[in-house]
Amino acid sequence: MVIRLDKNAYGKNAINLSKIIRHPDRHEIRQISVDVSLQGDFETAHTEGDNAAILPTDTMKNTVYALAKDRFVASIEDFGISLANHFLDNNPQVSEVKIGLTEYCWQRMQFNGVPDPHSFVNGGSEKHEAGIVQTRQGLILSAGIKDLLILKTTDSAFEGYIKDQYTTLKEAADRILSTSCDISWIYESVPGDPDRLYQEIRESLLQTFAAHKSLSVQHTLFAMGENILKGFSQVKEITFKMPNKHHILFNLQPFGMENNNEVFIATDEPYGYITGTVSRS
Amino acid sequence: MVIRLDKNAYGKNAINLSKIIRHPDRHEIRQISVDVSLQGDFETAHTEGDNAAILPTDTMKNTVYALAKDRFVASIEDFGISLANHFLDNNPQVSEVKIGLTEYCWQRMQFNGVPDPHSFVNGGSEKHEAGIVQTRQGLILSAGIKDLLILKTTDSAFEGYIKDQYTTLKEAADRILSTSCDISWIYESVPGDPDRLYQEIRESLLQTFAAHKSLSVQHTLFAMGENILKGFSQVKEITFKMPNKHHILFNLQPFGMENNNEVFIATDEPYGYITGTVSRS
Amino acid sequence: MVIRLDKNAYGKNAINLSKIIRHPDRHEIRQISVDVSLQGDFETAHTEGDNAAILPTDTMKNTVYALAKDRFVASIEDFGISLANHFLDNNPQVSEVKIGLTEYCWQRMQFNGVPDPHSFVNGGSEKHEAGIVQTRQGLILSAGIKDLLILKTTDSAFEGYIKDQYTTLKEAADRILSTSCDISWIYESVPGDPDRLYQEIRESLLQTFAAHKSLSVQHTLFAMGENILKGFSQVKEITFKMPNKHHILFNLQPFGMENNNEVFIATDEPYGYITGTVSRS
Amino acid sequence: MVIRLDKNAYGKNAINLSKIIRHPDRHEIRQISVDVSLQGDFETAHTEGDNAAILPTDTMKNTVYALAKDRFVASIEDFGISLANHFLDNNPQVSEVKIGLTEYCWQRMQFNGVPDPHSFVNGGSEKHEAGIVQTRQGLILSAGIKDLLILKTTDSAFEGYIKDQYTTLKEAADRILSTSCDISWIYESVPGDPDRLYQEIRESLLQTFAAHKSLSVQHTLFAMGENILKGFSQVKEITFKMPNKHHILFNLQPFGMENNNEVFIATDEPYGYITGTVSRS
Repeated sequence: MVIRLDKNAYGKNAINLSKIIRHPDRHEIRQISVDVSLQGDFETAHTEGDNAAILPTDTMKNTVYALAKDRFVASIEDFGISLANHFLDNNPQVSEVKIGLTEYCWQRMQFNGVPDPHSFVNGGSEKHEAGIVQTRQGLILSAGIKDLLILKTTDSAFEGYIKDQYTTLKEAADRILSTSCDISWIYESVPGDPDRLYQEIRESLLQTFAAHKSLSVQHTLFAMGENILKGFSQVKEITFKMPNKHHILFNLQPFGMENNNEVFIATDEPYGYITGTVSRS
Repeated sequence: MVIRLDKNAYGKNAINLSKIIRHPDRHEIRQISVDVSLQGDFETAHTEGDNAAILPTDTMKNTVYALAKDRFVASIEDFGISLANHFLDNNPQVSEVKIGLTEYCWQRMQFNGVPDPHSFVNGGSEKHEAGIVQTRQGLILSAGIKDLLILKTTDSAFEGYIKDQYTTLKEAADRILSTSCDISWIYESVPGDPDRLYQEIRESLLQTFAAHKSLSVQHTLFAMGENILKGFSQVKEITFKMPNKHHILFNLQPFGMENNNEVFIATDEPYGYITGTVSRS
Repeated sequence: MVIRLDKNAYGKNAINLSKIIRHPDRHEIRQISVDVSLQGDFETAHTEGDNAAILPTDTMKNTVYALAKDRFVASIEDFGISLANHFLDNNPQVSEVKIGLTEYCWQRMQFNGVPDPHSFVNGGSEKHEAGIVQTRQGLILSAGIKDLLILKTTDSAFEGYIKDQYTTLKEAADRILSTSCDISWIYESVPGDPDRLYQEIRESLLQTFAAHKSLSVQHTLFAMGENILKGFSQVKEITFKMPNKHHILFNLQPFGMENNNEVFIATDEPYGYITGTVSRS
Repeated sequence: MVIRLDKNAYGKNAINLSKIIRHPDRHEIRQISVDVSLQGDFETAHTEGDNAAILPTDTMKNTVYALAKDRFVASIEDFGISLANHFLDNNPQVSEVKIGLTEYCWQRMQFNGVPDPHSFVNGGSEKHEAGIVQTRQGLILSAGIKDLLILKTTDSAFEGYIKDQYTTLKEAADRILSTSCDISWIYESVPGDPDRLYQEIRESLLQTFAAHKSLSVQHTLFAMGENILKGFSQVKEITFKMPNKHHILFNLQPFGMENNNEVFIATDEPYGYITGTVSRS
């Protein structure tokens, strides 16, 4: 019997960085969290404790801050590609670099319709993500929205499903649909303006969610994916993770009252969890 | 030696409730969390296990959902007062009812400038809070903003402080100021339109934060409080809890680079914590 | 109208510190989080932005680490008193120092009954807390247990309570009682061996919880307090915050099955919240 | 261009369940969280909103509680297999059932060495996990430990690594090693007594961690894996996710003091993240 090292990787996670980008008339604040992960020839580090091929995760952290000065000037997608190139170019023992970036969304304050030049308020749970997988053969770029919490109060039903001995759920022709979704998509190639494209894709996702006559979460998931693939040739495939945020009708009958789809228990657990990838064939 | 029961209270927390309010042309979604707490003559429950004076917390929960049907139609302040009255009126053994309400801020989706009639996106970490303390003698109403995360990239300094043997902090003429603040205020009396007043107070707080030439968190805290008390006669006093969200200059000197107030470590712990109440005398 | 600064304080929270204490035969690991808060004459800092009386929170942090070297050698209570004295002695503008300390409980690993000299495993959610309030007049020392999650599967009932139009809860002669409690007590004076006393009080609390024939959470709360005050003359008063961790009987009747107090839904929200202080008169 | 549905799944997560198992002399409390996920022929649910093949996630939840009564009597591994069989046997449209189970570790209270028959205290952050992947072809069973927080105060070094222009980390011949690890392993076949085997594997992991002269996290990871594969023929492969919980030496030099590996900053972010799988070849 031989014991061997199989798939392995290491890196630094949660490198929390903010940057002020100064324009003549206003400041931008950009706040991100970066994850760096390397794969490569690290076998003797594991088997013999030989660190000669190990770039310390502390150095990865320093590198991210140092490169941010000159190279984090526009989209997180572009900054991530710079980081991936840096680590691959300078580390021959490395075969694959993964960079994950999460951007927190600060919103510029506005007073009487005038944007403030340097003051910001938290932009919600929603984050913009980017992922780079860079090997000697090329790179794969993905982008996504994390923790996008959305809700519609009608145009959502759930009927016609299997009934068995453990069924108690009542069919609903009109219910609240809410999900805190993670959506990510892979680009065919690196787009010219990743930030603008991200905003357009986000807008399309919200529009489909709002307009769709939903017969189930799966039904809406597919419609959202289909519209992205039809509308954006730059997108190769798109993946949805859609945990239900249940709003359950509260039973008012014991109190002699009727609940006409008005009052709900908002509950986090347990939750339905629907995932799916939509692509071209 | 006699052992005695001192101050005590009980209730139900985190009663998570959502409600659809249907207007002819659009739906509203309101999502709140309610805490109910009672004080009164509960001594024998503690000392003898006699529950004759105990309204179960499960019943409090049912009551909140049941009353939400007809009485949660406008502000959380008004709904909270309804709840407080109900519990006080129906429970002679109770001397004080506290109701705490937290409203999550859903934002209506807009497409091409047109508000969607029934679709919403998460409105950020920020919550609108209300608090009612109702006794046989009267009620005290407070409102507030919880988890308001704000940031300014300039017009903030911190200089001229005490230096001692443990000082390493460098004076800063220009720094990032960010805080995830909880702000609450007590009303002189129940206002006519608590929602509109809340929005006006919120706007004033943000404006002061943005415009203030800050010499410290304390300095900005007081300025924010002063402007509220000057601008809103309905507010009796206002209390701020302002934890710093530090953005610390990353030291690029070891790499032969200069950091011109550009690249920062965003860090959660440890954090400065500044609190203060501003009132009239 | 004069606007004035009312009660205010500032400090540094979440100063996360660990220390290795080396004994001839074994190491101790101590991991704590420290909060420092000062009250005093800080009015001009607020009203004029004058920082001449402000000890920066960054310096507080440095001070905690520096003093930990020589003074954090035994209990957190003793270390906290050292810190409080330091800040009060060196800052004439300060009238009150509050120090809060939270200790995470590492458990020494054991193999075949032999304690390992330097390896540890996480000791649970439970934390040991200490609080010092130091003024020019003297100090108040408290200690406590935070996030003590306990459960008993029987000897707990809840019956004989008020029934009204919103009651649906069924009386229970035998139910699960579980709470994630925060318990803190004030000492009459600084005890000689705070760590040993803490362990004895903790043991007594658990014993009462286990042995008590509980007729309600309130009933058990008082019994626990009463036993501490009877058993420990060093304790002046003790305060309990006991949020219910509900385990709700799952209704198996729709499936033609009986639930003989066997299968429960474990749920976090909403939760009953019972608080009380027990003291001597 | 044809848009198509790719990999997809759905189910219910966080089905939180507790059970009292009554023995003549004592009670057991078992608290678990169950995730159910199905793959199969769900295309028309996505493309047409046809729910005829959809077993509602609410029914999955009911099923877990109902089956818990008779089949959750021993290990979570055995209960999970029962659940997987049930869903596969009763749903011809399903090709794969995944069941994930997480058990919270309640520890029985002891007083003067005597175990209490029905009282328990929280057993730490650590959870016991099991995973079942059941298809028409067979099943794969895995088990694991989640959030196992361990620390050693010595016998850990990190030296001899790559130095480059962004290196500031100092080599350490003696440092704290701490990690909050997730460890999971795949069984060759279903073991006879999964609970006992789990405890033996856990003990072996801790022993290796404690005894190993660590030259890096990778070095310790491999040693832990190697010892499991050597000691337990039932284990096919084992995977480690080992985020560093950094304890960073605090710099006392500015205060004229020396830090002889005594006082550390305990910090959560950023963190090193080391992963690896060890198997047989």
